Amino acid sequence: MIRHRLYRLVPKWIAYASAVLAAGLPAVAQEPLPSWNDGPAKQAIVRFVADVTTADGPRFVPPAERIAVFDNDGTLWGEQPMYFQLAFALDRVKAMAPEHPEWWETQPFKGVLENDLESVLAGGERALLELVMASHAGNTTEEFSQIVADWVTTAKHPRTGRLYTDMVYQPMLELLAYLRDNGFKTYIVSGGGIEFMRPWTERVYGIPPEQVIGSSIKTQFEMRDATPVLVRLPEMNFLDDKAGKPVAINQHIGRRPRMAFGNSDGDLEMLQWTAAGPGARFCLYVHHTDAEREWAYDRESSIGRLDRGLDEAASRGWTVVDMKRDWKRVFPFER
Amino acid sequence: MIRHRLYRLVPKWIAYASAVLAAGLPAVAQEPLPSWNDGPAKQAIVRFVADVTTADGPRFVPPAERIAVFDNDGTLWGEQPMYFQLAFALDRVKAMAPEHPEWWETQPFKGVLENDLESVLAGGERALLELVMASHAGNTTEEFSQIVADWVTTAKHPRTGRLYTDMVYQPMLELLAYLRDNGFKTYIVSGGGIEFMRPWTERVYGIPPEQVIGSSIKTQFEMRDATPVLVRLPEMNFLDDKAGKPVAINQHIGRRPRMAFGNSDGDLEMLQWTAAGPGARFCLYVHHTDAEREWAYDRESSIGRLDRGLDEAASRGWTVVDMKRDWKRVFPFER
Repeated sequence: MIRHRLYRLVPKWIAYASAVLAAGLPAVAQEPLPSWNDGPAKQAIVRFVADVTTADGPRFVPPAERIAVFDNDGTLWGEQPMYFQLAFALDRVKAMAPEHPEWWETQPFKGVLENDLESVLAGGERALLELVMASHAGNTTEEFSQIVADWVTTAKHPRTGRLYTDMVYQPMLELLAYLRDNGFKTYIVSGGGIEFMRPWTERVYGIPPEQVIGSSIKTQFEMRDATPVLVRLPEMNFLDDKAGKPVAINQHIGRRPRMAFGNSDGDLEMLQWTAAGPGARFCLYVHHTDAEREWAYDRESSIGRLDRGLDEAASRGWTVVDMKRDWKRVFPFER
Repeated sequence: MIRHRLYRLVPKWIAYASAVLAAGLPAVAQEPLPSWNDGPAKQAIVRFVADVTTADGPRFVPPAERIAVFDNDGTLWGEQPMYFQLAFALDRVKAMAPEHPEWWETQPFKGVLENDLESVLAGGERALLELVMASHAGNTTEEFSQIVADWVTTAKHPRTGRLYTDMVYQPMLELLAYLRDNGFKTYIVSGGGIEFMRPWTERVYGIPPEQVIGSSIKTQFEMRDATPVLVRLPEMNFLDDKAGKPVAINQHIGRRPRMAFGNSDGDLEMLQWTAAGPGARFCLYVHHTDAEREWAYDRESSIGRLDRGLDEAASRGWTVVDMKRDWKRVFPFER
């Protein structure tokens, strides 16, 4: 018994000696957020993270409560000249057209097949919804996941010629990793489709499927040849935008986030909800100001409009990233 | 530079020496699942966990995919003589009665206030739904959370006189911890209310709010005195039972579980969905067979009926826990 106790002490002493030695070494930690210029946005992020991770500090946040939520379109990846998921829907309609000869006679499908986007958009929201349902429903969850996985590894963005998953923001990838290194759980809270994102978010962002929240259509449990499947129905289940975002955060996470990141008025309620909690909270808007490296748009844009959000950020002192000024690099493929 | 490299090697060598020494020590690991008798159920669990955590084995499952889902009522805590959440609803109606004098004249409220449960139940599902809405809606998410937290720390079970949160199954607490120790993420997937469970599941089960899935009513984002709140509406959002369970698992987790645990026909689709995935899967039913230490019920019970599930477990070779035979202890408070 005593012999065993002595043996057990040995690794403890060795671990102790090792810790002492390691502590004596010069710090070689990499500077965080290397693609961020050392301006007010980066400084605000680093200061906040230092505050909430200082165990005896007044703004300390226990690891379990370190929840950070990110919008996706325009916040983690691009959204111009159209939401990437809309490009997927159009491609999907074209791929499915051989089984739907009637689409050549019916809008909005006719417009898609004839590459006449104007006539599609003339149909308004209803036409878009029709395209989404036709392109997203009618299969099982596993079939749809495979269709998305195939698309994101082949389809190319019309301007850059890159894969859509290459058009993610390098500074935000660094931010995601930096927050996770500091004990944060990173979530996506997007107006985009939850099942459109999950097949690739872990690989691209390091965000696992269970931390992806988004809009959804209804699914139904069915037995097919004695095998259970979930069938995707052409019916909206939840629209995860504007006032829907806090509702979805509460439903999925059940905790109020400590940090929230968005780029449009569609994220405003999420940021308000985050900011209104007690203790340390951090809100940030990505402002698209770089027409050369990316796009420049805000108050007048139909995609990713940032108008009320800009005003509220100014009046509440939220951090606003000026992409042109604050980011050394926008996309990972830039050199 | 060379000096730094040498220094960095030192802790590596010490760690190596420490590992070698530790490996030479006799194993002192505690036997897992101490409240389980060493029968076929425990053996099946331990064997499955050993299989999926053996890195070079044929049934290995990467840690990210180790998802285990648990029903709550009757699987993790008791559900007799009535679902504990129904006891909460009844207590809540009584607490709210002073503000609702009209309830003394209207069923099902009259029945509740007069402790005449039969007349309440005579109203069927509709009466119960009315009670649930009256007792669960009309407040903010934060108010409701506080109400639940207060109730579970004061209300007592009618038979044992214990707090409801003491009426959890000791063997299942050990199982939750054992799975987490082996890299599993443990989730609740319950027909009970998601916001009724979240205030206490972390403390009682070690399951954080973001890993709790349940039935829900709708909530709405509102500004009250310039402060955003989520208001709970008297309208069903989702019923997380039967075929709803795989739908909710897909919606919240986005991965198919590797292990599923239930106790009633309401869990059957969840177990079927789990079992139908490729690779190693494990399904288990808790069978209430111990009238002395707990309750004995199955095919004929109106609460927690286990009928089709028992047949399917037998034909598919799922593990069935016989509470009387397999558990040394049922509740933590037993000695």
